[in-house]
Amino acid sequence: MSNEEKVIGVLGGMGPEATASFYMKVIKETKVTKDQDHFRTIIDSNPKIPDRTQAILYDGPSPVSEMIKTANNLKLAGATVAVMPCITAHYFYEDIQKEVDIPLHHVLKGLNKYIDEECSGVQKIGVLSTTATKNTRLFETHLHNKEVVYPNDFEQEHKVMQAIYGKNGIKQGNTGQHPKALLMEVAERLIKEEGCELIIGGCTEVELVLNATDLSVPFIDPMRVAARDLTRSEKIG
Amino acid sequence: MSNEEKVIGVLGGMGPEATASFYMKVIKETKVTKDQDHFRTIIDSNPKIPDRTQAILYDGPSPVSEMIKTANNLKLAGATVAVMPCITAHYFYEDIQKEVDIPLHHVLKGLNKYIDEECSGVQKIGVLSTTATKNTRLFETHLHNKEVVYPNDFEQEHKVMQAIYGKNGIKQGNTGQHPKALLMEVAERLIKEEGCELIIGGCTEVELVLNATDLSVPFIDPMRVAARDLTRSEKIG
Repeated sequence: MSNEEKVIGVLGGMGPEATASFYMKVIKETKVTKDQDHFRTIIDSNPKIPDRTQAILYDGPSPVSEMIKTANNLKLAGATVAVMPCITAHYFYEDIQKEVDIPLHHVLKGLNKYIDEECSGVQKIGVLSTTATKNTRLFETHLHNKEVVYPNDFEQEHKVMQAIYGKNGIKQGNTGQHPKALLMEVAERLIKEEGCELIIGGCTEVELVLNATDLSVPFIDPMRVAARDLTRSEKIG
Repeated sequence: MSNEEKVIGVLGGMGPEATASFYMKVIKETKVTKDQDHFRTIIDSNPKIPDRTQAILYDGPSPVSEMIKTANNLKLAGATVAVMPCITAHYFYEDIQKEVDIPLHHVLKGLNKYIDEECSGVQKIGVLSTTATKNTRLFETHLHNKEVVYPNDFEQEHKVMQAIYGKNGIKQGNTGQHPKALLMEVAERLIKEEGCELIIGGCTEVELVLNATDLSVPFIDPMRVAARDLTRSEKIG
């Protein structure tokens, strides 16, 4: 499939702001001189998809059927490849892919390839993610030959999850200083005390407030890597 | 239709970055405490829609049939109302609306109502837009009882259009200092020499670089008004 025919589908709404931010990354990763050089992109931002963390940790309603419906809706609207700007959602990747007949780009597999190519010397990687992603070992499963370090239980609940889900947190529309300070504090401890050589924004909300320039070691945003993968490869899955 | 059932469709890609930015405005205008409180939003960002300025000013290919197809694709994917984050595209509003059986929100009519309600004392309004919007008198047609002032011909071509379409301009992916300085210079002259009491970002690209805090008089972004209209009204057309 040529890039001319590729239509990027975004299975969004998990959350909405991370979806808008991801589309901006797709645009920034595309080399253009005029509007018409961009990829056609179909976004179904469906915030009615049940919360992934609730489903995994607290036996909340499963998001799978709504995610499958949304992915098929993207295909109906013309998407030739789809991507989920939600890391936790990748826990359900196989359940979705087997019910949808366009390729669903796997953000964590793409990230593993990127780290192998661009950061091969790095051994110890700190991950700021939801507790559901931490507990389901999503990063360990997909990042090969690297040591993955998460915040300790206290930091995970009282700092990282507070920043994402808490009062005045990112999912309440606050991408300002409060959630940022919480995340920075944990990241800097992972660097200084645990010796992490790289920090990954392992939840699409984290990347709404943390940037590469905020930390004393490199920071990787997996959705920026995904945007790069989707806009550069002719063939992707 | 309740807000629960409303699905906002975005007829996008004119340009892509203005589309992503508009969706971010919809999110910011929605009061939420969790992801699930947001509106479902379907975006078809179709940059293959021919350029509106080229069509209006230089007899380029008409964007109408591709716009109609895109609007109908939004309906197919579930949108119950649509909006175009491109002011110049509103020149073709009637051509699109008559071929699509979901309401297409008219951004300029919404803007007129907003200005009547919020800025009733203002008489003289400066508009930074494409030359196509200027020449087709889109703002004069829809802003009632106000004097609309555009940049002079030199400023329009060599500053405003350069900022939007020129080398290192906004449509080439540059939302930094270069296009901003060009637009600021024109806006400040409209304020100081022409006596404009309000400036409108009359092209969705302008709002990617100019903000309310940049100018010495109020600045209105019509797409922020549209985002507010779409997220607040039960019924909209």
